[in-house]
Amino acid sequence: MTSSLLVFTTDFGLSDAYAGVMKGVALSINPGLSFIDLTHQISPQNVAQGSFLLGLNHHYFPEDAIHVAVVDPGVGTDRRPVLLTAPWGRFVAPDNGLLTGVISGYLALQPEAAGPVDLPEGLTAVHLTNPDYWRHPVSHTFHGRDIFTPVAAHLSLGMEPEGLGEVVRSLFYLPMPKPINHAGTITGQVIYQDTYGNLVTNIPADSLPPAESVEVRIKGHSIVGLSRTFNDDNYANDSGLIALTASHGYLEVALANGNAAVLLSASEGEVVQVVT
Amino acid sequence: MTSSLLVFTTDFGLSDAYAGVMKGVALSINPGLSFIDLTHQISPQNVAQGSFLLGLNHHYFPEDAIHVAVVDPGVGTDRRPVLLTAPWGRFVAPDNGLLTGVISGYLALQPEAAGPVDLPEGLTAVHLTNPDYWRHPVSHTFHGRDIFTPVAAHLSLGMEPEGLGEVVRSLFYLPMPKPINHAGTITGQVIYQDTYGNLVTNIPADSLPPAESVEVRIKGHSIVGLSRTFNDDNYANDSGLIALTASHGYLEVALANGNAAVLLSASEGEVVQVVT
Amino acid sequence: MTSSLLVFTTDFGLSDAYAGVMKGVALSINPGLSFIDLTHQISPQNVAQGSFLLGLNHHYFPEDAIHVAVVDPGVGTDRRPVLLTAPWGRFVAPDNGLLTGVISGYLALQPEAAGPVDLPEGLTAVHLTNPDYWRHPVSHTFHGRDIFTPVAAHLSLGMEPEGLGEVVRSLFYLPMPKPINHAGTITGQVIYQDTYGNLVTNIPADSLPPAESVEVRIKGHSIVGLSRTFNDDNYANDSGLIALTASHGYLEVALANGNAAVLLSASEGEVVQVVT
Repeated sequence: MTSSLLVFTTDFGLSDAYAGVMKGVALSINPGLSFIDLTHQISPQNVAQGSFLLGLNHHYFPEDAIHVAVVDPGVGTDRRPVLLTAPWGRFVAPDNGLLTGVISGYLALQPEAAGPVDLPEGLTAVHLTNPDYWRHPVSHTFHGRDIFTPVAAHLSLGMEPEGLGEVVRSLFYLPMPKPINHAGTITGQVIYQDTYGNLVTNIPADSLPPAESVEVRIKGHSIVGLSRTFNDDNYANDSGLIALTASHGYLEVALANGNAAVLLSASEGEVVQVVT
Repeated sequence: MTSSLLVFTTDFGLSDAYAGVMKGVALSINPGLSFIDLTHQISPQNVAQGSFLLGLNHHYFPEDAIHVAVVDPGVGTDRRPVLLTAPWGRFVAPDNGLLTGVISGYLALQPEAAGPVDLPEGLTAVHLTNPDYWRHPVSHTFHGRDIFTPVAAHLSLGMEPEGLGEVVRSLFYLPMPKPINHAGTITGQVIYQDTYGNLVTNIPADSLPPAESVEVRIKGHSIVGLSRTFNDDNYANDSGLIALTASHGYLEVALANGNAAVLLSASEGEVVQVVT
Repeated sequence: MTSSLLVFTTDFGLSDAYAGVMKGVALSINPGLSFIDLTHQISPQNVAQGSFLLGLNHHYFPEDAIHVAVVDPGVGTDRRPVLLTAPWGRFVAPDNGLLTGVISGYLALQPEAAGPVDLPEGLTAVHLTNPDYWRHPVSHTFHGRDIFTPVAAHLSLGMEPEGLGEVVRSLFYLPMPKPINHAGTITGQVIYQDTYGNLVTNIPADSLPPAESVEVRIKGHSIVGLSRTFNDDNYANDSGLIALTASHGYLEVALANGNAAVLLSASEGEVVQVVT
């Protein structure tokens, strides 16, 4: 299946030439390609964050898009480069948990511990072992340029997955921390902080009780009631903090027209409780 | 009128997935689209800054470009999503003043106060009320993804504005602070600070007296004479500060090969005076 | 020779509209163009850094790519705007040393001092003096928009270099500081710090002795042995610092899964020694 779109999710940043070079390499193989950056600003080496954003957002791209995902602290070691083919999208990435967010959407039961997970029906994967589709010489430190992008570009030309390496039945899975529900209290944590300072938690929107009866606690603050928009301060507490379920599909803590992360000095890992 | 180009002006930043997701949504509707980012780094929720940059710069794009402008602190409230069709460009945006910079170029007289302004001849607008051209379910917090971008993509396919909602005769106008001219002194302010630390004021280049007789005052500093380039220190003061009229079309204060904003600890809102 | 690709290397940053405006201007001349950003985040006015990244990386792009390189502290002065045609790529840029990294790859002997260098066989250059291919009015402060990009867009349509100005035989050359080899010690310096905090030196990978016998010294730290990957801590010192030759082709100092620049408070110019 040919494609004309590569979508990048990496921690390469935009100040170095790494992101641009990958696109140059891709165009050198398939001059007809277009590119979209989901983001190149995953926190350095933060595989879990890359998995979270890719899992949430790959559905917004055409189903024939080829995703190049590279958050790869183990580059050059024995972690495997892989291709995952899903009903919605194809993904080239290191097999280090970065594809967890994509895989989890197809699993009936989420593993609790990190480790290999058998791929459910409909998903297939290949360990990328065929150097014919790599860029040479292959460095030990930049497989985004030398393996992942060239493989994606060859895929876009219609190359079949089987020709790229060995079929594998399982991929590495890195579970997101789960909220704990005990005695009427859900205890979760901040798993993502966006550019506005909104604090996204791991507490799913659909696990919450009715909006008006929710109390959210974070760092000694209490917020009673869920707001509908970032501008809705009917339920703001004295500091202006609000709680809401926004576009990520999880409970968020925000400051109307302000930066909650700065106000609270809070970031990823901060405990958040919902009392019902 | 079909188009193949969307131009984005937002405050979404580049570290989150918001900007990439909008492009994915657009390509899912019209696979032939190309994208240019004017910038995604408008200061968070700074509608006036977005209006300033969009107003100054939309003329550098092809006249059939469709601009998606989203600086939208009121997302999900009753502020209206609108489409403005101008002789040079079409614009989908929240009706919160973000289109002021575009509209002002067509007005004979600039309103002094914020509020609705009647559209001059040649400009037409539509309140986007037809959900057939939105992405569903529509969130309360991310209309860039769910309303503005889908509408822009449908427009690019040749959809007529009238089919997208109700024609409106006025849009919200957010005037830029005007410099005051009194007794030979023009008193203005810094309205934009660029990445080099150049301080752009609201004093138009064409309102200035001859270059050699201008004295510019900012935070106790005096600069006599206008420089021609950022490298021209013939008119630099003792601190190396220069004044010039550069590519924005307004008076700027800069530091030759340095950062004036850092040297002066100055930013948007700082008073600047021109004595003639 | 027509082309459909412009590649940008500038210090314009991404928060202002400068980078987006150049693309708008280019599309207004040739609607069929595509764009890749090598980076817009060269340190402000750091010509040497731009030269380094462009020299290292232009080979990863198709050979018919047209590079627009603008790090231009002397914009509007008498420094010349030029077009360099090389066997691999065409380059429009200010003649201030920014093309040094490209030119040096074709020179048998590298000049030691800054100044004009005669172009070797296979390279040709033109001083861009023909205003027919510029955007008017031409500002004194933004030739990226008014000269370099319009010229590149006309080139992409098949315009011949000779029509754009006067042929010149030499361009300005800005040598990279050379490491000094004395009594078994190579003394170099950090010339680039990437987004991970890896410190890239000017000591070429191929000038190093066998990996296990190398000792690298920086700011009182000693690292014995070269690592193969960023994750390989067999040769890490007590602070976790490693030395390796990575994708830039030079000796680098890094911190496994961390930021060496922060740990060492080191940046460009820091002395690095290799003892053999």
